[in-house]
Amino acid sequence: MAQNDTVKLIGYWSSPFALRARVALHLKSVKYEYLDEPDVIKSKSELLIKSNPIHKKIPVLIHGDVSICESLNIVQYVDEAWSSDPSILPSQPYDRAYARFWAQYVDDKCFESLNAAVGAKDEEGRMVAAGKLMVCLGILEETFQKSSKGLVFFGGENIGYLDIACGTLLGPISVIEVFSGVKFLQEETTPGLIKWAERFKTHEAVKPYMASVDEYVAFAKQKFSIQ
Amino acid sequence: MAQNDTVKLIGYWSSPFALRARVALHLKSVKYEYLDEPDVIKSKSELLIKSNPIHKKIPVLIHGDVSICESLNIVQYVDEAWSSDPSILPSQPYDRAYARFWAQYVDDKCFESLNAAVGAKDEEGRMVAAGKLMVCLGILEETFQKSSKGLVFFGGENIGYLDIACGTLLGPISVIEVFSGVKFLQEETTPGLIKWAERFKTHEAVKPYMASVDEYVAFAKQKFSIQ
Repeated sequence: MAQNDTVKLIGYWSSPFALRARVALHLKSVKYEYLDEPDVIKSKSELLIKSNPIHKKIPVLIHGDVSICESLNIVQYVDEAWSSDPSILPSQPYDRAYARFWAQYVDDKCFESLNAAVGAKDEEGRMVAAGKLMVCLGILEETFQKSSKGLVFFGGENIGYLDIACGTLLGPISVIEVFSGVKFLQEETTPGLIKWAERFKTHEAVKPYMASVDEYVAFAKQKFSIQ
Repeated sequence: MAQNDTVKLIGYWSSPFALRARVALHLKSVKYEYLDEPDVIKSKSELLIKSNPIHKKIPVLIHGDVSICESLNIVQYVDEAWSSDPSILPSQPYDRAYARFWAQYVDDKCFESLNAAVGAKDEEGRMVAAGKLMVCLGILEETFQKSSKGLVFFGGENIGYLDIACGTLLGPISVIEVFSGVKFLQEETTPGLIKWAERFKTHEAVKPYMASVDEYVAFAKQKFSIQ
């Protein structure tokens, strides 16, 4: 275990994965030093390379003498290392397994479609990826309707693990919507997710750390050298 | 939660991912009905499609009225739903995060190289993938040396989460070794993993469920239509 209690988070202001760690730390009222990677697109700091030698990616949580990598892993660690309320993962084993399953679905299937849409080399490739993303969001809508039980978050009344996992999609989707002119979250197909997204973005544990659509778009233009 | 306590596992005899679930259930002394998918290569049972409608893959654990999918998710569920000793995940938050990180490394990086080696279309592609797999195993060797602390398993004295995650590699590696003639686990480069693999395969919670190298090879020949 950590031999001292200093907490640092290496992130990047527009990273939807760093957002996960920041929301978790906020929910648990953990005081930490936030270290923004100065230029994560072009170079990596020595601290990042030392703290995450395998993937060299943000976010990294540094707790005393140990480093924890991978955003969902960090969220689970924060929930377990600061075990006072509120709980981020549900308390019942099946609810925990359900949340973990869908969080993995977001990282695997949803981001696969998102990345395919961004990286597509032609219009046809973009359309295929966009269609797959629509299907993924339709499936998440069903999941939301089922798991929220008419309440406001995936876990019910309070923001939790699956909300934090899904919240990562909102920035990238808003960017793709601007560039493609396609609305991925629509009242007809994803009414629950639209309401959930507004609640998530304006939650006090999320709002301070989430960039605006304009900021995400400006970042994407810089990252992909778009005029 | 489950409204009754019947436990069923849908698997396939040669699946290294179903092995994870079987080892976890054995460690916890859970009585369950094992349902072998009759012909997972060509078709899927109605029960599998109903129990895992998103991925339609084995393994699926059915506990009373609920289904749990994805092998590592099942292992964590088993550890939490049957919370008596032995624990499968470590007790300390950092040790748990460490085990989860490396388990994800196995599923992402190691299996990416394994699948690339199997799916390579030419000799050059196979050599590149084989090289990447060697690098992954070298990194796992370092992890084993560090985390086992001179003891016999990744978690120390007892078989645990990271052993179960890594154990999934042994069947596929033995098949690739036979087909390629290359030894991936070598005394010079992975001495710790070689000893660990022997201990893992002969552990009483693993041995009954692990196919022999000959059986794995015969299965691979059938799956990939190799004469």
